Amino acid sequence: MQHGLSVLGNDGTSFVPLVVLELAENTEDKTIAWLLSKIRDKQQHGGAELLVEQLPSGEQEKRKENPNLFLVGSTWQRLLNGAEDLGLFKEFHDGTMRGFTYANRDSFKEFHGDGDGFLSIAECQYIIKHELDTLRAKDEAHVPGYPKLKLYPGKSIIRRLQSKGIIVQYFPIHDKDELKRLSSNWYKRVKLSFQPLENIRYYFGEGLALYFGFLEYFTLALVPMALIGIPYYLFDWEDYDKYVLFAVLNLIWSTVFLEVWKRHSARLAYGWGTLSRKKAFEEPRPGFHGVLGLNPVTGREEPTYSNTKRQLRIYLVSLPFVLLCLYISLHVMMIYFGMESLALSIYNEDPSFLTSLLLFIPSIIYAVVIELMNLLYRYAAEFLTNWENHRLESSFQNHLVLKVLVFNFINCFASLFYIAFVMQDMALLRHSLATLLITSQILNQVMEAFLPYWLQRRRNKKVHKRVRRVMGEQELPMVEQVRLERDMNTYLGTFDDYLEQFLLFGYVSLFSCVYPLAAVLVVLNNITEVYSDAFKMCHVFKRPFSEPASDIGVWQLAFETMSIIAVFTNCALIGLSPQVQDYFPEADTQLILTVVAVEHVLLAFKFILAFIIPDIPKDIQIKLAKLEFESVEALKKKKMLEAAEISKTKK
Amino acid sequence: MQHGLSVLGNDGTSFVPLVVLELAENTEDKTIAWLLSKIRDKQQHGGAELLVEQLPSGEQEKRKENPNLFLVGSTWQRLLNGAEDLGLFKEFHDGTMRGFTYANRDSFKEFHGDGDGFLSIAECQYIIKHELDTLRAKDEAHVPGYPKLKLYPGKSIIRRLQSKGIIVQYFPIHDKDELKRLSSNWYKRVKLSFQPLENIRYYFGEGLALYFGFLEYFTLALVPMALIGIPYYLFDWEDYDKYVLFAVLNLIWSTVFLEVWKRHSARLAYGWGTLSRKKAFEEPRPGFHGVLGLNPVTGREEPTYSNTKRQLRIYLVSLPFVLLCLYISLHVMMIYFGMESLALSIYNEDPSFLTSLLLFIPSIIYAVVIELMNLLYRYAAEFLTNWENHRLESSFQNHLVLKVLVFNFINCFASLFYIAFVMQDMALLRHSLATLLITSQILNQVMEAFLPYWLQRRRNKKVHKRVRRVMGEQELPMVEQVRLERDMNTYLGTFDDYLEQFLLFGYVSLFSCVYPLAAVLVVLNNITEVYSDAFKMCHVFKRPFSEPASDIGVWQLAFETMSIIAVFTNCALIGLSPQVQDYFPEADTQLILTVVAVEHVLLAFKFILAFIIPDIPKDIQIKLAKLEFESVEALKKKKMLEAAEISKTKK
Repeated sequence: MQHGLSVLGNDGTSFVPLVVLELAENTEDKTIAWLLSKIRDKQQHGGAELLVEQLPSGEQEKRKENPNLFLVGSTWQRLLNGAEDLGLFKEFHDGTMRGFTYANRDSFKEFHGDGDGFLSIAECQYIIKHELDTLRAKDEAHVPGYPKLKLYPGKSIIRRLQSKGIIVQYFPIHDKDELKRLSSNWYKRVKLSFQPLENIRYYFGEGLALYFGFLEYFTLALVPMALIGIPYYLFDWEDYDKYVLFAVLNLIWSTVFLEVWKRHSARLAYGWGTLSRKKAFEEPRPGFHGVLGLNPVTGREEPTYSNTKRQLRIYLVSLPFVLLCLYISLHVMMIYFGMESLALSIYNEDPSFLTSLLLFIPSIIYAVVIELMNLLYRYAAEFLTNWENHRLESSFQNHLVLKVLVFNFINCFASLFYIAFVMQDMALLRHSLATLLITSQILNQVMEAFLPYWLQRRRNKKVHKRVRRVMGEQELPMVEQVRLERDMNTYLGTFDDYLEQFLLFGYVSLFSCVYPLAAVLVVLNNITEVYSDAFKMCHVFKRPFSEPASDIGVWQLAFETMSIIAVFTNCALIGLSPQVQDYFPEADTQLILTVVAVEHVLLAFKFILAFIIPDIPKDIQIKLAKLEFESVEALKKKKMLEAAEISKTKK
Repeated sequence: MQHGLSVLGNDGTSFVPLVVLELAENTEDKTIAWLLSKIRDKQQHGGAELLVEQLPSGEQEKRKENPNLFLVGSTWQRLLNGAEDLGLFKEFHDGTMRGFTYANRDSFKEFHGDGDGFLSIAECQYIIKHELDTLRAKDEAHVPGYPKLKLYPGKSIIRRLQSKGIIVQYFPIHDKDELKRLSSNWYKRVKLSFQPLENIRYYFGEGLALYFGFLEYFTLALVPMALIGIPYYLFDWEDYDKYVLFAVLNLIWSTVFLEVWKRHSARLAYGWGTLSRKKAFEEPRPGFHGVLGLNPVTGREEPTYSNTKRQLRIYLVSLPFVLLCLYISLHVMMIYFGMESLALSIYNEDPSFLTSLLLFIPSIIYAVVIELMNLLYRYAAEFLTNWENHRLESSFQNHLVLKVLVFNFINCFASLFYIAFVMQDMALLRHSLATLLITSQILNQVMEAFLPYWLQRRRNKKVHKRVRRVMGEQELPMVEQVRLERDMNTYLGTFDDYLEQFLLFGYVSLFSCVYPLAAVLVVLNNITEVYSDAFKMCHVFKRPFSEPASDIGVWQLAFETMSIIAVFTNCALIGLSPQVQDYFPEADTQLILTVVAVEHVLLAFKFILAFIIPDIPKDIQIKLAKLEFESVEALKKKKMLEAAEISKTKK
């Protein structure tokens, strides 16, 4: 860890700042002094034992800016202890991953000397975050300077201050040198290569590395489908038997792809030490509030919120709201079909180049409206889920994901379902699918990367100009860098990125048998997506804290559900195709029964496949078993020694 | 633990015998002496530290009987230590379940004085079994007296001797007083009451108690279905709308019933301490053999067997054999239909009482043949699975269960499927279902309880007579009791009992909408089943070792699969019913599409229901979380103290 920048600590030694803590501008001095002393105090006195200093005011003229910015760092020794507290898994000299302990530090593969470079920057910042988060109130009944702001013994101080707005934010800062290195082998060269997952993990942590791993894996897995899809477009194949073939391939592919991903991600997570690491005990989320009560688990007094009330809010407010939104979405869809037929009638009256362009207008407008509705709904869903007052972040996330997924699914695919199964117009389906897919891709890339970047750039330019006036062409000093990063947008996690891939997966798999080219479009999109996502992580958003993740969580379930729905839709589409219907000229019943039988066989096949393919590769399983065996043996040996000790003392 | 019987140990004190160990009659004296010293040796010298004595020869004339019977017992202290080694969970004074440690013994609820009565008899015997099983070779290269019988360091001695036939068997002995107490409140009174699960668990352990818990739960859950089913029989309801209603009720019931069972069994297992207990490291099964190799997990030398060879045996021998058996089963079914039509033609020619009885003959013969084929197949499946040479007992069990389940399912239900969907004869279906169900129930009860009991009784009588000649009307002395129990049949585990319930569940759920009375028959069967199962456990079979179980394992999956298949069959049956077909007079396609839609909705509903209902009840979840929280806190405190120590010594 070699930073170009360091600050002077109050004991005369300098330290490398890792995290920035911003307090509200009007915070009482008493409170600041108390908080800083808490952060600096020795652990046995209930402190975090970290280094913290106020950000020096910049060299340029004093502006009316919040002076309450603090830089937090740590000694190596403290970070290593923190890694042990957190139960970080590191590679042992025998190639297995084990929980790091300071006492055994020399048995770990990457540990040299005093341990410099043993922890990644993301891990260091994560440790500091964890230590700050677990600063707990001891005897204090309230926050000094705020007599009304009660503290509960054993509860996180930082969370409390955060939910009361005294702590505005705290975030990890970028490391210019490392960032340059990362970006140069990530997105600054246009050449075909695998994602530098190890580097991403080193700089941003496991959660984000796993997302890029998934993005890469998904894209690569789509390539064969895309290659098979191209001749359909080139030779204008309209034979349905070819489409049937493509659909069956696609369905098997989607099952195998998702199962193999589980193994692949288990391997990645094992190598990163997150697979077998235990989850930390979950604290209430900052926004949670309630009346004082007894926590049944910890036995401590803390704010509690009645579950019945929450259920009432969910079922009487959130659920009707979601249903209303779905209704509106379907209504908008019907308007779109009205516009579509209007455009068609205009074109039919006067078929010219201009009116033929007009044919695309409704789809494009509809795609834009869908994106807008998704965006608006996202805000509403977040507001509502927040208002439901979930105690844990995980429960909050689950309710948010469910709300957003259902709406996005209906909003994006309802019109396609309508065209496919009510109108049964395959040409229109293909046309709409293409327009929706392309428009939403373009919109997405603009909205999530280029627009924020442009806004960010405008702000940066101002700062750069101001600094240049004072300092010339030198690199931006740390003070300015911190202030710049403070103003950057916060990256809200991988949610939106996964959601986008989920919808793309829907476009590829749901209607694959009528539009094989979808895979090609998604591959093309994802190639640019990799670059724009990488760019936005490095330059558009504030650096996020590392999220230790052992899998892609709820998204695995979401993708699997989509692949099951794809079996229904593809079987139904095949059943509707005229060529298949020609095989059963005498009776429709025969056709339908066959399609249903095929569907059931495919579903059974999917379940059996998912059951047979082990989720964790054999060699990782052996490594895990080895560790378990050794810990059992060690325990036994310890017991035997103890027993021998006791019998000795008895004699 | 108050036994009426005890033996004199070699140090002059007497002990209560818990387990009988039988060695082959021709075992070398050297080997016996070595094994006994291993069992008696102190733990720090690699022994089991148990008490063991040879069974005294009986008071009557010496007969030519195997003298190598040994009684194994233990001191209380040793049993308590063993409970700690095993990680037994016991109720703590605060009502949660915690791993027992001898140091904290006084904080456990049921621990009084020196701990007498703290462990159940089943637990004591299980501890002794575990201690015997984990007797490991240390420096010995081979078994003394058998230079060819190699021993591998760190591998179980008992397993090795067992697989070489030197140890014939070892089993826990009955406790006459406890057995009398148990049987009196279990099956010796004909009154409606719940099963005495706590007593069963105390005497036989968790695995069996869970089976009886499931049997009771399943029977009670069937009662409402049976009550609804009775009027169908009484009033001869033939309206299909009523049958549809019954089928829908049945499908929802089967989902809810299985989900609620998970919660119920979690609650039982939590109270018995098996829910959160870690599984022990699995040893290779006694029958496993192979060439010497390196175990990748333990890093030790031991027999290994190539996985490829095993796969070849499975796919090239076992699989074709199973398929052949399925073919034979289907062939027998076709013969049955031939007989059936023959009987019908005879009856039609000459309809009399005698020929009307003849109508039942084919079904009864077929039911008997099915039972016979199941029995024969069972032996073949066990032989084959054994030959596949699985290393672990769990893997052996999984392969055996899969083989047996598939065959039993086809064998029992193929004819019903054929009648329902190929012949589409609902009257015949009802008739066959009833005959199959009743015949197989009667056969089962005879085969599994009364026949073995009768054989057992004949043997007992001989012994009793002989003893009475010598001792008069006194109770059987222990020596004779041990010899009697030695000759009893071995109970092979709950497999057959669960299998029977599984098939009954199939009869109830698969065709519920044509024969609602099935539930009544199954309830009646299970009421007698409870008694015959209880009786056979107490008097027909050798007492089995306790099997710690936290759930019903693979059977949960089997029952769930059956309830999914039931959705298909019931929907199809409803679609075939004439009254439903009358609703869609103009087009069959409309009918089929509706049925398929209903089927999909029901399946989706099942999955959502299974997803929503939490598998572990809230209060148990809180207790588990509490324990985890406390262990995390304790670890933290320990670390803090250590850190304080270190900083003190530094100063």
